[in-house]
Amino acid sequence: MLTDVKQESLKRISYIEGHLSGIRRMVEEDKYCVDILKQTYAVRRAIEKLESLLLDGHLHTCVIEGIKDGREEQVLRELVELYSLNNK
Amino acid sequence: MLTDVKQESLKRISYIEGHLSGIRRMVEEDKYCVDILKQTYAVRRAIEKLESLLLDGHLHTCVIEGIKDGREEQVLRELVELYSLNNK
Amino acid sequence: MLTDVKQESLKRISYIEGHLSGIRRMVEEDKYCVDILKQTYAVRRAIEKLESLLLDGHLHTCVIEGIKDGREEQVLRELVELYSLNNK
Amino acid sequence: MLTDVKQESLKRISYIEGHLSGIRRMVEEDKYCVDILKQTYAVRRAIEKLESLLLDGHLHTCVIEGIKDGREEQVLRELVELYSLNNK
Repeated sequence: MLTDVKQESLKRISYIEGHLSGIRRMVEEDKYCVDILKQTYAVRRAIEKLESLLLDGHLHTCVIEGIKDGREEQVLRELVELYSLNNK
Repeated sequence: MLTDVKQESLKRISYIEGHLSGIRRMVEEDKYCVDILKQTYAVRRAIEKLESLLLDGHLHTCVIEGIKDGREEQVLRELVELYSLNNK
Repeated sequence: MLTDVKQESLKRISYIEGHLSGIRRMVEEDKYCVDILKQTYAVRRAIEKLESLLLDGHLHTCVIEGIKDGREEQVLRELVELYSLNNK
Repeated sequence: MLTDVKQESLKRISYIEGHLSGIRRMVEEDKYCVDILKQTYAVRRAIEKLESLLLDGHLHTCVIEGIKDGREEQVLRELVELYSLNNK
């Protein structure tokens, strides 16, 4: 993994972990469910941003190398699979 | 919040936190991005299940009470808003 | 169904049908796939807006009536089911 | 666009158009909103399958050519953009 993608990913994971701790506290303190749900949506959005970052890194390393090395079937099949899984 | 919804929610949040720690380790150990992305998808699915549980509890408490108390405009507006936000 | 929800829904369905015809033409004319995909995303967004409208109408009619008539278990179970299906 | 991707896409678009006509009739005939919503979800799923097909074709043509021709920055940036848009 590219060093800057890795550093940025770890930073984002820390942020998501903090956000999730906040949601745990909201549940423990019986906060209003609508407010808790808005926070869980925000966590999912943050995970999607992490995914975009990881995908970007993946495309610029493994996918390019795979295509140049003649393993294009494998790397492209994985991309289509990820796309479908993302919509599940 | 209903006691069983609260207990179940906290259990699910713990599970999600554990899953997220696993993803952190995968990033730190430079695992294959495609495998990491499949795990972040699984975390989002787990958060959506937590949301269904919270929504179920919310409907059976605040929404029913709100409608019986004549505050239906507010509780229904919030539900439509949550629905739209969920698709953002 | 409320008359204005029905009229507005039919208007939106017409719009979506027109949008889809445009996508058909793009495919027939071999337009760039990335541009076609941006249009299919837009159609999905338009369908989600139609869904919010239908849900809003449903909440203000069947759900309120169901709760006042003591059929709350059924109407709330359907809402939770719709929420889960929406994320599938 | 590859001929088989094009033929299969047009077939799927016809299917989606038929499905949408069915939804229009359901609205016109005041069918139960929950049943209508389940159909709009099915249409969105069908559009997502069309997207997977189009993406698969795009990856195997334009993306591979782009990478081999040294236009990798452009084709990869578009893929990341599509991924982000898909989650909007």
